[in-house]
Amino acid sequence: MPYVKIEVTREGVTREQKQQLIKGVTDLITEVLNKDPHLTHVVIKEIDTDNWGYAGVQTSVLREQGITADKK
Amino acid sequence: MPYVKIEVTREGVTREQKQQLIKGVTDLITEVLNKDPHLTHVVIKEIDTDNWGYAGVQTSVLREQGITADKK
Amino acid sequence: MPYVKIEVTREGVTREQKQQLIKGVTDLITEVLNKDPHLTHVVIKEIDTDNWGYAGVQTSVLREQGITADKK
Amino acid sequence: MPYVKIEVTREGVTREQKQQLIKGVTDLITEVLNKDPHLTHVVIKEIDTDNWGYAGVQTSVLREQGITADKK
Amino acid sequence: MPYVKIEVTREGVTREQKQQLIKGVTDLITEVLNKDPHLTHVVIKEIDTDNWGYAGVQTSVLREQGITADKK
Amino acid sequence: MPYVKIEVTREGVTREQKQQLIKGVTDLITEVLNKDPHLTHVVIKEIDTDNWGYAGVQTSVLREQGITADKK
Repeated sequence: MPYVKIEVTREGVTREQKQQLIKGVTDLITEVLNKDPHLTHVVIKEIDTDNWGYAGVQTSVLREQGITADKK
Repeated sequence: MPYVKIEVTREGVTREQKQQLIKGVTDLITEVLNKDPHLTHVVIKEIDTDNWGYAGVQTSVLREQGITADKK
Repeated sequence: MPYVKIEVTREGVTREQKQQLIKGVTDLITEVLNKDPHLTHVVIKEIDTDNWGYAGVQTSVLREQGITADKK
Repeated sequence: MPYVKIEVTREGVTREQKQQLIKGVTDLITEVLNKDPHLTHVVIKEIDTDNWGYAGVQTSVLREQGITADKK
Repeated sequence: MPYVKIEVTREGVTREQKQQLIKGVTDLITEVLNKDPHLTHVVIKEIDTDNWGYAGVQTSVLREQGITADKK
Repeated sequence: MPYVKIEVTREGVTREQKQQLIKGVTDLITEVLNKDPHLTHVVIKEIDTDNWGYAGVQTSVLREQGITADKK
């Protein structure tokens, strides 16, 4: 009976990316824990950049300073 | 000191239904656990159907296929 | 596709009380939102009284002072 | 590796207030637990007053009755 | 800045399985969203079977009845 | 009506540190948002180091490698 919550900043995540996350996480749990996928729920929460703080600073401020969360 | 979070898909839950959920859960906790209702908080979170996955598929896709969550 | 989380202080909630909460919340959601109960998951989290703060004070301290959360 | 979630009713919290909450919580955790602030994430969630229940009543109804959450 | 929470019933998840979940989810988010993995935190919560309800019944009761969550 | 959840790894947080976190967060919210502290609940969750992943690795493994979360 797994439940998964994914929180990310609201920065243009597409419908297709959401589907990839949902499918990927559900498959992973099915493989690793052998769970029936019909018992797995995945919820994605997008958080405004004003509302997510990292190291004490709003993400919206970090973005204005040109600091991204991108993989280098 | 109970705190209850109810997550549902955002599919037209009315203000009255929310009040029924809040009242019903608070009464239930008061009865079962004998808690002072002034210490019980209930938070309802409505999740876009693109953001809720079930069995690896977005709820929005399930709805397009005519699959509902209704009680039969 | 509802998911419900109930957080209470860890103060001797019995197995039967947990079952009453699970049954009561699931029935409530089925009635109010007409949801298939096979899509409703309820998770109860018991929190140590040292780890729950109310009005800035640990619940364990409140209990030592004779302050309960009981319904009057 | 702390993660902090702050839930408040959506009643006009300003960008500056959010920054004060993020900064204040991160500083507190750094001081009390000696954690590297680059490992601390703070997420603020604003909840519609129809969706937050207190003592079995929607906050929006409480506000209509002139009952606030303000410090006296 | 993703944060992921995975909730499963406490039924003997091994340390290795936890590592597979953590690695798998982090890789997935890095691929799909191009996020720096140093900003991704994954938290696994194991819930006692008395505390997880499905379709109104405690998982511990379902298990006593021989009903598992295994993939068929 | 604020609710705050603080998640940290379970690495010897003392009762006094928990009280400092609870008091500090409640005071912060009272000051910044002018909220009645009797409506603020703070919940601390300690997560086993096997169950917290950072950058795709279990915290328990990071600790074995001598990597801490301490402020430098």
